[in-house]
Amino acid sequence: MHMEIDIQKNVLAANEADAAKNRVYFKSCNLFVLNMMSSPGSGKTTLLCETLAQLMPEIRIGVIVGDICTDNDANRLEATGVKTVQINTDQFGGDCHLDAHLIRHAAEELGCEDLDLLIVENIGNLVCPAEFDIGEDAKAVLLSVTEGEDKPLKYPLMFQVATIALLNKVDLLPYLDFDADLAVENMKKVQPALPVFKTSAKSKEGLDAWIDWLRQQVMIKTGR
Amino acid sequence: MHMEIDIQKNVLAANEADAAKNRVYFKSCNLFVLNMMSSPGSGKTTLLCETLAQLMPEIRIGVIVGDICTDNDANRLEATGVKTVQINTDQFGGDCHLDAHLIRHAAEELGCEDLDLLIVENIGNLVCPAEFDIGEDAKAVLLSVTEGEDKPLKYPLMFQVATIALLNKVDLLPYLDFDADLAVENMKKVQPALPVFKTSAKSKEGLDAWIDWLRQQVMIKTGR
Repeated sequence: MHMEIDIQKNVLAANEADAAKNRVYFKSCNLFVLNMMSSPGSGKTTLLCETLAQLMPEIRIGVIVGDICTDNDANRLEATGVKTVQINTDQFGGDCHLDAHLIRHAAEELGCEDLDLLIVENIGNLVCPAEFDIGEDAKAVLLSVTEGEDKPLKYPLMFQVATIALLNKVDLLPYLDFDADLAVENMKKVQPALPVFKTSAKSKEGLDAWIDWLRQQVMIKTGR
Repeated sequence: MHMEIDIQKNVLAANEADAAKNRVYFKSCNLFVLNMMSSPGSGKTTLLCETLAQLMPEIRIGVIVGDICTDNDANRLEATGVKTVQINTDQFGGDCHLDAHLIRHAAEELGCEDLDLLIVENIGNLVCPAEFDIGEDAKAVLLSVTEGEDKPLKYPLMFQVATIALLNKVDLLPYLDFDADLAVENMKKVQPALPVFKTSAKSKEGLDAWIDWLRQQVMIKTGR
């Protein structure tokens, strides 16, 4: 077990070095980089499609999509007209996260010089992606209301490192025994100052607040 | 990247050796071992509580519960009277899966000699636990109907290694744009012979079929 932890530390240290290089690269491109993370099926892609539709073409956006297999999400996103690059990690041993090295290659393939906003839709996993800095400006974690109120306590790192949290699929609340206030309270136990938006791509609830937040981050970072 | 893959191979090879030892140990205890895996929030614990209530005391059951943090699930399960051991991986670097070595320690703590059935509720993660054999007799994967029909295609390894699949929370189908037939079709694309049960701990739909399957496996394995 100790050997395994040492190996993990080495892998994470190598990733930190790559992430630092990414930050220099992203700074040279003058854009805002958002890393979106969550469990599988929390609604990242659907929420992103709505978000892109409202921000483009005013804001020039590119998306890097991570999945172990398939380019389903990239295809759904491209229907909005956004530029995407799909990373499939099955060629890298089925990796459960995107690391800084993979992101750099995908970002260069996408061409970040003409973008205001780069969004990374990470692999569906509430654990490992939280450990891998990719040189981003902000991390957004989505939690679907179908997942249970105690997830922030059970997977605390993801909620500790997050810049903002989205409690998603709130349109389903009437059909669930889910206490949204308790879920938010549990997020705040892990990180008291974490901003939380309640969102639904289906009912559109909360979308304006989230999209305004994102637009503002891009303006602050790029000065545009 | 290649170095990282080599490291992964070494970790997995060490785990295989431990899993082989577990199989010998479990055989000596004459019990059936089930490894339950899924994304966070797919309903493993709630389904297990219902399952235990119907199988005990006829079948003697122990549960090993994996989480990064908290013993919430163990506490919920213990309300049924079952013996549990909680593994928290935060002391091992926040590991995203249970490995064979951890399982062996927990199994010995639980005392498997007096059990007919050992259930491992793995950490909520649709990726990494699929790679780690723990010496179990069968792997069950849960997919909640809130997670999207294409998850078997995006996370194929989990559905390739599974012995059975449970399409869970089917009580929510009326409120979702979710095509249950398509989800099952996608599971079968990954593993054509995979048995799939549709289940809901809330409406009780499909519980009998799943519990009958589990009871039968225990009888076949233990001869009791």
